[in-house]
Amino acid sequence: MGRKVRAKATATVSNLNCGFDILGLAIREPYDFVELEMTDSGVVEIAGIKGCDSLSHDPEKNVVGVVLNAMIRKSGTKAGLRAFIEKGITPGSGIGSSAASSAAAAFAANDLMGRIFSPKELVTFAMEGEQLASGTAHADNVAPALLGGITLIRSYEPLDIVQVNVPPELFCVVIHPDMEIKTSTARAILDKHITLTTAVKQWGNVGGLIAGLFSEDYDLIGRSLTDHVAEPKRSALIPGFHELKKTAIQHGALGAGISGSGPAVFALCRGELSAKTVISGMRAFMETLGIKYNAYLSPVNREGATIC
Amino acid sequence: MGRKVRAKATATVSNLNCGFDILGLAIREPYDFVELEMTDSGVVEIAGIKGCDSLSHDPEKNVVGVVLNAMIRKSGTKAGLRAFIEKGITPGSGIGSSAASSAAAAFAANDLMGRIFSPKELVTFAMEGEQLASGTAHADNVAPALLGGITLIRSYEPLDIVQVNVPPELFCVVIHPDMEIKTSTARAILDKHITLTTAVKQWGNVGGLIAGLFSEDYDLIGRSLTDHVAEPKRSALIPGFHELKKTAIQHGALGAGISGSGPAVFALCRGELSAKTVISGMRAFMETLGIKYNAYLSPVNREGATIC
Repeated sequence: MGRKVRAKATATVSNLNCGFDILGLAIREPYDFVELEMTDSGVVEIAGIKGCDSLSHDPEKNVVGVVLNAMIRKSGTKAGLRAFIEKGITPGSGIGSSAASSAAAAFAANDLMGRIFSPKELVTFAMEGEQLASGTAHADNVAPALLGGITLIRSYEPLDIVQVNVPPELFCVVIHPDMEIKTSTARAILDKHITLTTAVKQWGNVGGLIAGLFSEDYDLIGRSLTDHVAEPKRSALIPGFHELKKTAIQHGALGAGISGSGPAVFALCRGELSAKTVISGMRAFMETLGIKYNAYLSPVNREGATIC
Repeated sequence: MGRKVRAKATATVSNLNCGFDILGLAIREPYDFVELEMTDSGVVEIAGIKGCDSLSHDPEKNVVGVVLNAMIRKSGTKAGLRAFIEKGITPGSGIGSSAASSAAAAFAANDLMGRIFSPKELVTFAMEGEQLASGTAHADNVAPALLGGITLIRSYEPLDIVQVNVPPELFCVVIHPDMEIKTSTARAILDKHITLTTAVKQWGNVGGLIAGLFSEDYDLIGRSLTDHVAEPKRSALIPGFHELKKTAIQHGALGAGISGSGPAVFALCRGELSAKTVISGMRAFMETLGIKYNAYLSPVNREGATIC
């Protein structure tokens, strides 16, 4: 039996309202595990998937398989990899389910290969998983899943990832209604063109959010959590979205919005106590809707993917 | 004769490539003066304009008149104001000529009126000057002209101005070719719609630039000085733009671009020595073009409008 390694990567909240396709932050739970065993088969096998019945065992159709194949090709190794996936994050939740598996796979494989790839290269490999999962090789989930904290993708070509300051009192609440929105569906409903006026509003908020995060100005962070591009379209896909967001704000959240492409809804809060008030309020609202959901409360996860 | 006061406001570089309509920084020269005298006429008079023959003495058609009238209306004063304008900044230069006059007028009038208005209110009054000058009440020049430093307009409605950290070694070089581009012309050639893909690139750079300014990461500042929206259209209006920009980068500038709506071209540099190398290179290139120009080198002006 070959050497084994097991990596963990957590859920991530991407976009953060204004930062469509460029911003994301890692939370502490839920998370996925990927365990890898080095084999001499020369191929990638998906040997087991726990916690989710809908994912394919075909390495070409599973993000873990795609990521591992890309890494094997690039490294030139003759070895094979056998993967066991343990899903803690429901696919189609909007909190980076595919990203967590891709990130854990890339992190584990790099460890087995003697850490030959840089963190940025791991992001590039994990993006291939995102390409499979959503049809676009976006990095706003895989970057924070791998690197931790809050990440900004300044540029995709060339890939330029910036670590953003994490204000110490920043907490994140996530409500995940038990329904699936495919990222590809959520992308398809967006307009391909936006007015320059809308774009100016959006990048004003991106500037404000980054300024707020660096200067640890929580009010500015809250004012900047505004989305003129995706939320007006995607909110229609999430039952009760506007009321849920309003509830979060009324209970003291700095701001709230759609996590990634939804249906998860996130709220940022100042301090754990405030986050607890917000999650209680959001839970109470979800009970009135009668839709099953999961709720998470977490500080920003500064750590990123880990071997465990 | 009534009480007199004289205020100075400097030139400003707006947009900073990626931050169309939201970013601007103040430099130290050139600058405008506005001297005001309180009268009992109840009206605003433009009593004199030095340094520019093309500006109107009609208070309804001069930015200073428009700003002062707005302030008189809002304050409810029965007094009048007599203004003497001394232009150091050529109109249509792209370095905030109208903004400097508007800012100096607002600052001087507020001083005469006993400082009844907040800095943000002064920005709002000065924006009325911009409305007259360019057809849009943009704040990306008047905010830094009044407040100094580097300003971000997070939002126009409501107006939300954020002061951005100024890295201590940041210097700005400005080359102003002796030709005029009307802001209204430069705005008219922009597309009213942009692709979402272009918008994502642009706000990635806005995020990167703000992150670079706060973290004082000069390389990141340089990488973020990229414009996918205005420069591709407006550069055609500026003879030799691409070569001039290339010259700045080759001589060590962090980045370069069109100042405001042009024709002025700016470069940001790390340190005064580097800025001197850059300005020499850009001057040498301008000599080969045979177009008259002015050149300025300055650290960021942290002070804003002042009484003098």
